[in-house]
Amino acid sequence: MSKPLLQPAQQGQRYELYSPTALPRAAGFLWNQRMMIQVTCRGYAVAQFMQPEPAKYAYAPNLEAKTFMQPEQPYYAHHPGRFFYIKDEDTGDFFSAPYEPVRAPYENFVFSVGKSDLCWTITALGIEVRIKLSLPVEDVVELWEVNVVNRSGKARRISVYPYFPVGYMSWMNQSAEYRPDLGGIVASCVTPYQKVADYFKHKNFKDKTFFLHDQIPTAWEAKQETFEGEGGLHNPSALQEELLRGGDARYETPAAVLQYRLALAADAQQQYRFIFGPAFDDAEITQLRAKYLSADGFVQAQAEYADYIRKGSGCLQIETPDAELDNFVNHWLPRQVFYHGDVNRLTTDPQTRNYLQDNMGMTFIKPQVTRAAFLHALSQQESSGAMPDGILLSQEAELKYINQIPHTDHCVWLPVCLKVYLDETNDYAILQEIVAGHDGKNLSVFERISNAMRWLLQARDYRGLSFIAQGDWCDPMNMVGYKGKGVSGWLSVATAYALNLWADVCAKLEQHECRQEFIAGAQAINSAVNKYLWDGNWFGRGITDDDVVFGISKDAEGRIFLNPQSWAILGGAANAEQRQKMIAAVEQQLETPYGVAMLAPAYTAMRDDVGRVTQKHPGSAENGSVYNHAAIFYVFSLFGIGEQDRAYKLLRQMIPGPSEVDYVQRGQLPVYIPNYYRGAYHQYPRTAGRSSQLFNTGTVSWVYRCLVEGVFGLQGCDEGLRVAPQLPSSWSSAKATRQFRGATFHLSITRGATDTLVLSCNGERLSGNCVTVIEAGAEYQLEVMIPQA
Amino acid sequence: MSKPLLQPAQQGQRYELYSPTALPRAAGFLWNQRMMIQVTCRGYAVAQFMQPEPAKYAYAPNLEAKTFMQPEQPYYAHHPGRFFYIKDEDTGDFFSAPYEPVRAPYENFVFSVGKSDLCWTITALGIEVRIKLSLPVEDVVELWEVNVVNRSGKARRISVYPYFPVGYMSWMNQSAEYRPDLGGIVASCVTPYQKVADYFKHKNFKDKTFFLHDQIPTAWEAKQETFEGEGGLHNPSALQEELLRGGDARYETPAAVLQYRLALAADAQQQYRFIFGPAFDDAEITQLRAKYLSADGFVQAQAEYADYIRKGSGCLQIETPDAELDNFVNHWLPRQVFYHGDVNRLTTDPQTRNYLQDNMGMTFIKPQVTRAAFLHALSQQESSGAMPDGILLSQEAELKYINQIPHTDHCVWLPVCLKVYLDETNDYAILQEIVAGHDGKNLSVFERISNAMRWLLQARDYRGLSFIAQGDWCDPMNMVGYKGKGVSGWLSVATAYALNLWADVCAKLEQHECRQEFIAGAQAINSAVNKYLWDGNWFGRGITDDDVVFGISKDAEGRIFLNPQSWAILGGAANAEQRQKMIAAVEQQLETPYGVAMLAPAYTAMRDDVGRVTQKHPGSAENGSVYNHAAIFYVFSLFGIGEQDRAYKLLRQMIPGPSEVDYVQRGQLPVYIPNYYRGAYHQYPRTAGRSSQLFNTGTVSWVYRCLVEGVFGLQGCDEGLRVAPQLPSSWSSAKATRQFRGATFHLSITRGATDTLVLSCNGERLSGNCVTVIEAGAEYQLEVMIPQA
Repeated sequence: MSKPLLQPAQQGQRYELYSPTALPRAAGFLWNQRMMIQVTCRGYAVAQFMQPEPAKYAYAPNLEAKTFMQPEQPYYAHHPGRFFYIKDEDTGDFFSAPYEPVRAPYENFVFSVGKSDLCWTITALGIEVRIKLSLPVEDVVELWEVNVVNRSGKARRISVYPYFPVGYMSWMNQSAEYRPDLGGIVASCVTPYQKVADYFKHKNFKDKTFFLHDQIPTAWEAKQETFEGEGGLHNPSALQEELLRGGDARYETPAAVLQYRLALAADAQQQYRFIFGPAFDDAEITQLRAKYLSADGFVQAQAEYADYIRKGSGCLQIETPDAELDNFVNHWLPRQVFYHGDVNRLTTDPQTRNYLQDNMGMTFIKPQVTRAAFLHALSQQESSGAMPDGILLSQEAELKYINQIPHTDHCVWLPVCLKVYLDETNDYAILQEIVAGHDGKNLSVFERISNAMRWLLQARDYRGLSFIAQGDWCDPMNMVGYKGKGVSGWLSVATAYALNLWADVCAKLEQHECRQEFIAGAQAINSAVNKYLWDGNWFGRGITDDDVVFGISKDAEGRIFLNPQSWAILGGAANAEQRQKMIAAVEQQLETPYGVAMLAPAYTAMRDDVGRVTQKHPGSAENGSVYNHAAIFYVFSLFGIGEQDRAYKLLRQMIPGPSEVDYVQRGQLPVYIPNYYRGAYHQYPRTAGRSSQLFNTGTVSWVYRCLVEGVFGLQGCDEGLRVAPQLPSSWSSAKATRQFRGATFHLSITRGATDTLVLSCNGERLSGNCVTVIEAGAEYQLEVMIPQA
Repeated sequence: MSKPLLQPAQQGQRYELYSPTALPRAAGFLWNQRMMIQVTCRGYAVAQFMQPEPAKYAYAPNLEAKTFMQPEQPYYAHHPGRFFYIKDEDTGDFFSAPYEPVRAPYENFVFSVGKSDLCWTITALGIEVRIKLSLPVEDVVELWEVNVVNRSGKARRISVYPYFPVGYMSWMNQSAEYRPDLGGIVASCVTPYQKVADYFKHKNFKDKTFFLHDQIPTAWEAKQETFEGEGGLHNPSALQEELLRGGDARYETPAAVLQYRLALAADAQQQYRFIFGPAFDDAEITQLRAKYLSADGFVQAQAEYADYIRKGSGCLQIETPDAELDNFVNHWLPRQVFYHGDVNRLTTDPQTRNYLQDNMGMTFIKPQVTRAAFLHALSQQESSGAMPDGILLSQEAELKYINQIPHTDHCVWLPVCLKVYLDETNDYAILQEIVAGHDGKNLSVFERISNAMRWLLQARDYRGLSFIAQGDWCDPMNMVGYKGKGVSGWLSVATAYALNLWADVCAKLEQHECRQEFIAGAQAINSAVNKYLWDGNWFGRGITDDDVVFGISKDAEGRIFLNPQSWAILGGAANAEQRQKMIAAVEQQLETPYGVAMLAPAYTAMRDDVGRVTQKHPGSAENGSVYNHAAIFYVFSLFGIGEQDRAYKLLRQMIPGPSEVDYVQRGQLPVYIPNYYRGAYHQYPRTAGRSSQLFNTGTVSWVYRCLVEGVFGLQGCDEGLRVAPQLPSSWSSAKATRQFRGATFHLSITRGATDTLVLSCNGERLSGNCVTVIEAGAEYQLEVMIPQA
């Protein structure tokens, strides 16, 4: 290829991919207040909206299971997608844009992922098709804009067929037909149910799927089978005919297909707009049509949406020797952090640890959201002090899937995440807020979190180690302690970390007894961990119900786990000598070209006393993958001990590229960090590095934190803004703009002949590394000189 | 077409279809003790096995919902199937047998459905492919035999590629690889779970899918994506290459593909055998290989299976002027009845009404099975006398899906179905059997059924009509009485029928008080029904919680329901004048060319006070379809009142054909009766008549009964065998062979100059119409003369 595979455009605000086959699963995603859509470069789409639980309006061709979002989800010919067939009326030749289902040769292909739209430009048979997908801020509706341009230099007669498969909607009732009164195809179904009570729940569901046009088509088809015929999706029988037949679907699989016949002079073009989505009834369809389906409607919705995304821009803009990093941190990372904090992954019952961490990230964008989230989470604390497995976001919500399985780590995340909010805002007043809880008690935030710490302290065994029950954060370890005896090494050191952080808060509030209680607790745990789990070069992962220590050197599989090491550094269980041993062990056994794996060697068979991690595929998810959420804590812990070069290297590995080989192996664009890259690097090198393609991950809040507090060292404190950058030694300088407590700081970091950091603010040299006088609305120039590497 | 579309072969023991496109969903099915497979003429397959709940070993391409068997289930490119690609090595041309996924032109196509195997013969590119699928009696394994014959008259170099997609097995763990030690491709997965308890349930699941060969292939491929490549299933990229690449699947969708390169002289052929199925481990795979994968193994399994099917041949062989009917009744109908009675639709919790009716049919095949089934069902009677919604067939089984919804009709089926057993066997001793129940009581069958009758009597409202709760037999009527007040017209008249039948049994046992109690109950119900539900020309369907009578002439939709009419005839609610009015109304409003609809006009929108029937698609399932299970009761009731011409016409409509138009519209072969044909004939003529393709239906037991007791009038009674044929007037004669109480009766019916039936046995004229002396093992010649039509 003379053309690169991929490149950033518009100063990194877009990424352009030039081949649909090199990265076949490469996708972009858009979301708004009530929906999410992920679309691959080839045109396959996964969309869901909240009513209030996640629901679909474009379905698989069979009755698909309702489940949580799957990693590496499979695509296949009839997977839901959005397609445009183009047929030359004179030759009968055709192709489909963007690429599926025909997969025809093309003259040009660009898949362009922007922050607030997804675009394609495809040229084939001399016809250029430009496609743009955008969303409004609130309604559940896809806005599609299509331009068809005759690039062939001669007059052409063509047909344009938008093909939006609707799929198998329901076994109870499904149909579709063209509705001239509404201006498009409307498919209807009844969400199936068995129990009478469900009827009342489903009554108000948006069980219609509409596909509306702004221009009256020549012909239409509403039945999937008639469109395909014996030709199949790659060569639909309906395209062999002059006109679509106009068939309705009656308890047959619906599809929305239109046909526009048009004559295009050389260089002439034709524009179409379509809207696609779910609705409750005809009235709602009419309303959505009126609101959006026009040039003005699209322009206004796009402007509002761009504004919405802009409001999630974050508090850090950087300029470093690493242009890819700059693109990612300036545009994509805060967008992903904002997505998490703004819509909570579009679930109604986020796992408590996710909810807290996602909102921790939101501190850097909209700290008032973080504040409200903490109060909301604490209102669901149990009277024992324990936090529930998930936080219910609405009245109707209930705990689902993994949230029905008891996990023991949720309390840990309260002080860990709250720290960022306190550092960023200095809003210690939150600690005095009274939270009326589901437990019937009115307690302050301080009291509630203290109770959570006490719950952690009591949830330990005779050795002083933390019980794991059916799992801690690493949810697949479900067999270690289900009998009530097994303990978690990670949760023990994490508890120590949480207790120490909370002791600091106690100190700040002059709650000296509490402080002493929690510090003593942390020390006790750390000595228990050292007594029972230090294995000579690293900490073990836990001890099973039957007293088997695992995650240690004598294990052939699952010999070393990353989390206990990272958090032993954070929580103080490891001394300097131990840390160096652990870092060496991690480097040797867990580091890979795609990041640092969560455990190694990956389990290849079930170990009855360890659990589900051993039933997950080696290299997938938690079993030996580069699980970024674990990796980032290692990075975070390394920044904490001044290991910035190693920390930066591992942080940088989370972002695909810039080498083409790396993009291809990982299979995704550098517009988000996935929850994992496949691991088991030594066992399965072919698949190692492959992206899960899942953009839901607690990782991103921590990546942002590592950049703010670690690389650029711009952490808030009581006195103001502490400045302590930790640039990788390969960087001689870097710049950043930091929004902080209403002020703007322009930071320039250079290396110079100095032994310690030298900080100037607005030209004035400061003693120490803290900017203490901060006025909201003001701008500050910070010059920082750091020692040569 | 010069060739017919379809014809019977081997005296009706097979059906041969000559086009894969005219009846694209036409399918045959095979089952054994632990599995079921339905395969379409085009090669798509649905297979399930019991472990103990229904499970799969070939999966959809996505995570499919676990649900009950769906009617008219959709097919799509990546639907599970069994395929054989054939490539000409010299030209690169290829096709796939039987038809999918390539859908290439063929020179010859035969899909041949036998009672114990499914076969195809396809010729394309001068190569004939003969395929045969059979099953053993007990193991879960598909036996595939493939012959490739060079019919081109010249030497050929070809590659044969069996392609058995395995699909998306599990999000937790899936992989596949070639195993030279086992001789084939083995895919492995872990059935996903969240709760620890499920791990112990799943531990022994057969999570491996094997595809083994009897001859070592030239090459292989175990990864779906690599096989397809950018070409897609209709033109797999792997076929463009000389050899398959031998890729394994690691958390990627598995497929089993082999390649055999061979040179075939003109008229030469090559035979292959393969086995496909699930297994727990390598040892089981090895064992199945040793047992089956050889010429002898196949032959023996096929012989045993044919023997198994032969044991379900039924008690009636007929010879009539209607050859299609003869084929169906002599071969296919008893097979379908046997399937139901032998494996209970491969569920672990059959609905009680289904379980009783399926076993009623088994009376004609293996009455000892029926006997055991009644005792088993009654052991699960509740202490109130009510029968549960489903009968649990194993310790681990639980009530699922619709069986979790309270229905009020189950008790009705006890006397209704037991009557056939008593008539057939005269085994009144069963009534004295003591059944130890889940209710802790030891009660005789007679006491238990009497209690069930009393439960029905008390489950009535102030008017004397039967409560419907969340549904009666017609399960979608879930809103009529969910508040506890609504009543069912059908269940009321059905209760009267059940009570009358049971009163007869009481009389036989000289339980005169009981008899009086039940007769009085039936009379009371029948007068209540007449008082509240007679609408002038037919009976209404019910009365809602809010006192709205429905299923009556003033309703625009759901104006008339079939079931209340049929059962009012059976139960005696209707007098002769009412019967004639009802029959006229049914003819006018419910009869269609595809049978008699269950209600009309079909509901097109929700009526909150009626229920789910109105949310089902018009024409689908219960909402206005020709629901054969309802239709057959109308037929049965017509035989009961001597309306044999009408009865026969409607009975005959249940079997597709013999016209090609009819086959095409219904879309199935005449090898089973489906649970419904699409209705709403006047609203949606395009789809009316289409088969559900579901062969699970209580209909078939009753069809058999209507033939035995109705058309041929060979019903057992106290004294022996009553002979009272009701031939349609268009038949001048008919013959039958009837197995009865161990004896064989050869019956010849002719019309003659007589006013009443004249019966001779072994040449001796009998007075009356009953053969009273019956010796097991003996053969009897019965000559029957009936009046001219």
